Amino acid sequence: MNNQRLLQALYRQPVDKIPVWFMRQAGRYLPEYQATRKQAGSFIKLCKTPELAAEVSLQPLRRFSVDAAILFSDILVLPDAMGLGLEVVETVGPRFARTISSSHDIQQLVIPDPEQELRYVMETVRLLRAELNNQVPLIGFAGSPWTVATYMVEGQTSKGFNIVKKMLYREPELLHALLKKITEATILYLQAQIEAGAQVIMIFDTWGGILQPLSYQAFSLTYMQTIIKKLNNKVPTIIYSKQTHGALEKIADSGCSAIGLDWTIELKEAKARVQHKVALQGNLDPAVLYASPEQIRMQITKLLTEIGSEPGYIFNVGHGLMPDINPEHVNVAVETVHAFSVL
Amino acid sequence: MNNQRLLQALYRQPVDKIPVWFMRQAGRYLPEYQATRKQAGSFIKLCKTPELAAEVSLQPLRRFSVDAAILFSDILVLPDAMGLGLEVVETVGPRFARTISSSHDIQQLVIPDPEQELRYVMETVRLLRAELNNQVPLIGFAGSPWTVATYMVEGQTSKGFNIVKKMLYREPELLHALLKKITEATILYLQAQIEAGAQVIMIFDTWGGILQPLSYQAFSLTYMQTIIKKLNNKVPTIIYSKQTHGALEKIADSGCSAIGLDWTIELKEAKARVQHKVALQGNLDPAVLYASPEQIRMQITKLLTEIGSEPGYIFNVGHGLMPDINPEHVNVAVETVHAFSVL
Repeated sequence: MNNQRLLQALYRQPVDKIPVWFMRQAGRYLPEYQATRKQAGSFIKLCKTPELAAEVSLQPLRRFSVDAAILFSDILVLPDAMGLGLEVVETVGPRFARTISSSHDIQQLVIPDPEQELRYVMETVRLLRAELNNQVPLIGFAGSPWTVATYMVEGQTSKGFNIVKKMLYREPELLHALLKKITEATILYLQAQIEAGAQVIMIFDTWGGILQPLSYQAFSLTYMQTIIKKLNNKVPTIIYSKQTHGALEKIADSGCSAIGLDWTIELKEAKARVQHKVALQGNLDPAVLYASPEQIRMQITKLLTEIGSEPGYIFNVGHGLMPDINPEHVNVAVETVHAFSVL
Repeated sequence: MNNQRLLQALYRQPVDKIPVWFMRQAGRYLPEYQATRKQAGSFIKLCKTPELAAEVSLQPLRRFSVDAAILFSDILVLPDAMGLGLEVVETVGPRFARTISSSHDIQQLVIPDPEQELRYVMETVRLLRAELNNQVPLIGFAGSPWTVATYMVEGQTSKGFNIVKKMLYREPELLHALLKKITEATILYLQAQIEAGAQVIMIFDTWGGILQPLSYQAFSLTYMQTIIKKLNNKVPTIIYSKQTHGALEKIADSGCSAIGLDWTIELKEAKARVQHKVALQGNLDPAVLYASPEQIRMQITKLLTEIGSEPGYIFNVGHGLMPDINPEHVNVAVETVHAFSVL
């Protein structure tokens, strides 16, 4: 590997420069992404066409000196392959043709063979590894079982999560049965990504934060722990935690290599609370990239000063890049991070 | 006042029973509310017709032994009166005819005379005080300036808050000018509510949690502090904090009497962190009311056991009641709280 910074930081080893990459670094803010997506015809076709998915994964690396590539895909391709039928409706977002509301529905779900039903993802990973040629590490990913379950039960992005919470409080065993099945499928899916060449695995627990603390542990964290244990330290793992700061110490004990933080916690507080158990990734408010280059430099320098030059830190945004930011501002961010002295 | 429990708890004095009320206790889950709303013709007309607004405020008190009444209104009636033109579109929610994007827009905003442009609110408060006849205290409220500003800038409920965050990072002085004007209007509005008879004031900071910690202090908490200071301890004040647990100690130092908590923090942790500076209100996940009466009793008893029998606690949900819950389950909650021994 030519650029080892991300892996070094994940293993909490010293780095020459702080590694930097961005959630949704391949995305709508890049005109070349827009062009490839147009060529694909739809977001889902883009995910399902390995050549095009690999192409958009590589686009940010041609523009910016980021220290990692991330597979272009979506956390909902797994439940799609389990049998729910994903469609993306413009202005509405992703939606499933079928939803889960009974034990019969759960029995109907298939555990996909990743090299069959999700072969397009594995092909994308293989293409990416070949094209990256060890330039930077490749990150694979999946949603957390809880986060994926919210979509499977609600059918789409929810505002109040009333349906899945109704299931949680009325039929907790039904929800656990669903989470177990998703966990099983996720383990195979992530093992196959590693087999195909993913060098880091990230689990997106986007909706863990809507649960009360004890439910978060019982319905989200436990299942992520099971997945991480099964991956058996073959590659470093990152748990992305959104609005679950109350559980930071518990996430740090989950066996993951790093925690990806949203922007609503100070890095120095997070660092103090997880001690030296895990690396930290984050946590610039992505909206800072709306500001002027001077403001961006100032905000990032403030953030880097908090975490200091201790090993085990990866710069990132606290949530995906917005579609209407100026790509040049991403470059300002990369250069500010790389210029920051770690000595 | 016949029932002093809420006021006693807000002043952290001993109570005979733990006081209980519910955010959105007057609302769509009650068939009698649906009937009155139908009679009014629209949500906005319901807010603007004192007799009907008072009627729906009183409806939950006829069903349940709750220890407080809360004015039926909406945090957006203030920006409506400031000149933005509120409309509520079915399935979309509240929306403003005009939005704020420039210093000129801010200059155009009026500081309403509460007894003129918001007279319907003051009339509702007076009617309520007369009809309540000191049975339980009456809570008045407003949105936090930051939360109100998000709607004034975005024009409606937002998903990513990109427009207001763009303003925050690009034109912070413009946003501060807006927040100052909203603060000024809010002070007059709340003073008038107190004058009209409100015995407790609650400030809803629903969107404070989308800000990074330093921005939360600079753009939200500071303005709430200014309001609380100006109210000059005439009545006890509650700040409702959603996803801003990182700032709990700072909110406790703001001068408020109590903090209203969402369900994503354990009460015992919150109690330990605010020490004895303020009372606490909350924080049952409102989705618990979807569960069976047995489950509801169990979850509430667990929560009450955490906070113990120390003075300075008010039971509530961590967010408004959902429209599709069984009203009988609210009664189960009230009875469980009142049956809990505080000795």
